[in-house]
Amino acid sequence: MMNPSQWFTEQAPGAESAFSLKFKQKLHEEQSEYQFIEIYETEDFGNLMVIDGCTMVSTRDNFLYHEMMSHPVLFTHPDPKRVWIIGGGDCGTLREILKHPSVEQAVQIDIDERVTRLAEIYFPELCESNNDPRADLKFIDGIKWVKDAEPNSVDIIIVDSTDPAGPAEGLFSKAFYRDCFNCLSEHGMVVQQSESPLYHMKLIGEMRDAMSSAGFEHLQTLFFPQAIYPSGWWSATIASKASLAKFRELDSANKNFDTTYYNVDIHKASLAQPEFFKKALGLK
Amino acid sequence: MMNPSQWFTEQAPGAESAFSLKFKQKLHEEQSEYQFIEIYETEDFGNLMVIDGCTMVSTRDNFLYHEMMSHPVLFTHPDPKRVWIIGGGDCGTLREILKHPSVEQAVQIDIDERVTRLAEIYFPELCESNNDPRADLKFIDGIKWVKDAEPNSVDIIIVDSTDPAGPAEGLFSKAFYRDCFNCLSEHGMVVQQSESPLYHMKLIGEMRDAMSSAGFEHLQTLFFPQAIYPSGWWSATIASKASLAKFRELDSANKNFDTTYYNVDIHKASLAQPEFFKKALGLK
Repeated sequence: MMNPSQWFTEQAPGAESAFSLKFKQKLHEEQSEYQFIEIYETEDFGNLMVIDGCTMVSTRDNFLYHEMMSHPVLFTHPDPKRVWIIGGGDCGTLREILKHPSVEQAVQIDIDERVTRLAEIYFPELCESNNDPRADLKFIDGIKWVKDAEPNSVDIIIVDSTDPAGPAEGLFSKAFYRDCFNCLSEHGMVVQQSESPLYHMKLIGEMRDAMSSAGFEHLQTLFFPQAIYPSGWWSATIASKASLAKFRELDSANKNFDTTYYNVDIHKASLAQPEFFKKALGLK
Repeated sequence: MMNPSQWFTEQAPGAESAFSLKFKQKLHEEQSEYQFIEIYETEDFGNLMVIDGCTMVSTRDNFLYHEMMSHPVLFTHPDPKRVWIIGGGDCGTLREILKHPSVEQAVQIDIDERVTRLAEIYFPELCESNNDPRADLKFIDGIKWVKDAEPNSVDIIIVDSTDPAGPAEGLFSKAFYRDCFNCLSEHGMVVQQSESPLYHMKLIGEMRDAMSSAGFEHLQTLFFPQAIYPSGWWSATIASKASLAKFRELDSANKNFDTTYYNVDIHKASLAQPEFFKKALGLK
């Protein structure tokens, strides 16, 4: 039996499963203006950030999520110069984006400054590009930021948020996707984490429907492992104004930066659709 | 906090993480001649078989493992007629193999008959092909079976075993792979579950080295999600006498049987090698 004074456990709501990590000590906890944030030093996963009881990021396995939220969409857009991250307060997605030489401006808009301040202390490697002159960290409401933006303000919007409950709920709505559509440039695309293919097919279907009805004609869901998230299998969904049939395969194969999971073969592989996924969504 | 009278938990040895499933009731437990077997009725994953404390198979997610242990290797061999399963007592791999019309003989060799008898009761859908005239269920030592086999006895050996501890330990050795090599036909191949890419890279490397030194010149590790196994991400490794550069892509695309996860795109995708995997093994 696992002693709760030594193990952090997250129960997946709706699927009666749980994932636990043994920890050496709790390093920090606080109720910020928006959410309850905990930091653990685990036995085997490095540090772990938990928000409102849900695992967010661990030292050991965050590379999967951050790389797959960044590189596929950036190597799909023909020339990504202006990128916004909605959420992403741990700065790991920002770091990956800034590896792309084409990016001229990367704005991270997380409502909760405390997430970033704690990441600077407990996940310094994720914050190593925060002082890049192209980076701009804003601590304001991302939904309002997108709503108020002028047309043709941005090339890619990465929605790197918590689950669709609490402050992130409005990020999974047609109104938000419509606002994204309106401020994106001609080839603009948005990518959003879309939960577990094994547990959350209904949510993935609803998200895709909302993206379509907001005006995005081209959708692509990609799949990747993520040990600390429910079921250990995760997805992200890209909604694009222009065709997603191809990505910049040669640029990806010749990328001049290091990654731990992503490469051109992994990019292609992440796009393969399981049979049950195609059936559930009526895809051919 | 999870009440152990309602939750089954497996702690991953070596990685201080755990996966838990809530159950309605324990349906059965017994100490067989070889191992301790438990069956639970879970809340959300259907029935669950546990052997010596490790999750083996659940109604909900076994399709991932069984399809990926079967279809990639069968669609890689040019003409698989004779297939052996070492282990695999739940009969799920046997069912998948028998979907291939080329297969004339499928022998399942599991040392523990009780696993199969319990699968017949609690996982009847996995046993639906047990009476296929091509199926032959033997309850004997698979290591000895392979050791005693004549040359050119079999086209594919699928090692569908428990983890490398207890009765399965000898299945992860050069001596066993050498015996496989000796009884396989000209294009023969063996595929074995090779644990988690996130947790067990050392084991994967050692297994591949043992396969190579046993005479197999061609190796291929494939990756797939598996929620109930440690880290939620799993692998299988194919060792082959002949080149693995191609598989029967057209036959896979035109397969005339149903699957839940596997298809030709998933097959290709499963072969993509993460950056850290290539670096750890010195692959290009």
